[in-house]
Amino acid sequence: MIIGEVISKVVSTRKYDSLQGFKLLVIKPCFGSKDDYFVAADELGAGEGELVLVSRGEAAQHALIKDTPIDALVVGLIDEKPSINVSNTAGMKQ
Amino acid sequence: MIIGEVISKVVSTRKYDSLQGFKLLVIKPCFGSKDDYFVAADELGAGEGELVLVSRGEAAQHALIKDTPIDALVVGLIDEKPSINVSNTAGMKQ
Amino acid sequence: MIIGEVISKVVSTRKYDSLQGFKLLVIKPCFGSKDDYFVAADELGAGEGELVLVSRGEAAQHALIKDTPIDALVVGLIDEKPSINVSNTAGMKQ
Amino acid sequence: MIIGEVISKVVSTRKYDSLQGFKLLVIKPCFGSKDDYFVAADELGAGEGELVLVSRGEAAQHALIKDTPIDALVVGLIDEKPSINVSNTAGMKQ
Amino acid sequence: MIIGEVISKVVSTRKYDSLQGFKLLVIKPCFGSKDDYFVAADELGAGEGELVLVSRGEAAQHALIKDTPIDALVVGLIDEKPSINVSNTAGMKQ
Repeated sequence: MIIGEVISKVVSTRKYDSLQGFKLLVIKPCFGSKDDYFVAADELGAGEGELVLVSRGEAAQHALIKDTPIDALVVGLIDEKPSINVSNTAGMKQ
Repeated sequence: MIIGEVISKVVSTRKYDSLQGFKLLVIKPCFGSKDDYFVAADELGAGEGELVLVSRGEAAQHALIKDTPIDALVVGLIDEKPSINVSNTAGMKQ
Repeated sequence: MIIGEVISKVVSTRKYDSLQGFKLLVIKPCFGSKDDYFVAADELGAGEGELVLVSRGEAAQHALIKDTPIDALVVGLIDEKPSINVSNTAGMKQ
Repeated sequence: MIIGEVISKVVSTRKYDSLQGFKLLVIKPCFGSKDDYFVAADELGAGEGELVLVSRGEAAQHALIKDTPIDALVVGLIDEKPSINVSNTAGMKQ
Repeated sequence: MIIGEVISKVVSTRKYDSLQGFKLLVIKPCFGSKDDYFVAADELGAGEGELVLVSRGEAAQHALIKDTPIDALVVGLIDEKPSINVSNTAGMKQ
């Protein structure tokens, strides 16, 4: 999964019926900048500026009642920003 | 999902029969430039220059009537470019 | 899907039986250079130098008669190089 | 799979019920730096600073008792950092 | 699929039972350097320094007798390094 910030909403009136009812949110991945913004479907009510946990790929289907053509789903709202302390011992940078 | 711009059409006469009937569109991802152009199948009638919402991977199958060897599908047409306002509070840039 | 150029063949005598009968082709993605060369299985008879349409991931299984441990499959031969004209209006470069 | 270092925990109280019971760990991939940190679910009890083996995508489902919306799972704890000796003969750098 | 060089072995005593019996190999992708090293499971007996063909994602399951939480599997040993000759005609570099 990835942790990302909700930075915008997407409106798409002409879409497959099975996408009806989902909010579509633009997500900015929090860690590093290599991953582009992407769009995740949301049923948990995440608001702009909130940190969310997103599952991508087929994993999204395992939270939904019926098969839906989405490849990214908000699966949790993050309580607090995780503190990142990278020990230099275990890491194996080349 | 990703938001992308339709920038061209692809013609492939010799292909698997199950691909017949789909328009094949070259998509330029809108956010950031790291993601390459790719090809998405389309049944919604997206035109060149339009912004579309694309699901990638197996998610595409969940919008189709029968299994089809496509890994990217236009699942919606975007009404309006989402406004991007990145709050600096939540983001956790290293 | 991606559009790529067939640049070489791969020979692998010791492999899973279910891979028998497929040509294995080295594909150079045409758009941008970020994506590395990769290997796709082929049943359509693509030759070196030809442009092909490749589906990646589980989508490949939906064109095959039986489950096969391949994650990239040539699903079409491209008639003509798509002309790329990127309108600057719709794009949302940061 | 990838080898990564556990660098933090993630707390998400509001999440899908099926995610209950899993520890959520921030993983820093060990090899190279191109891959961003990401979050993996864990049932094996990996602690901070430990090296873990993570499976990503649908593979995670094959270790779990029921379908769960996670796309990365710790599937093993690494005994020792693998020694990396890259022979220059076989490699085919361009 | 990708072609990679086996550069090391990984030992993980505490892992899911379904991973027992597989050798775990660190693979260095041969083409380009953008792809990080990763770990693939192996049943074909690939040795260090050998070139292997690896399938990633769910494709790996289609070679195995039972579902296993692995996302990369050695599916063939490469007889000879493929000769790479990139014709400048078909390529469509921007």
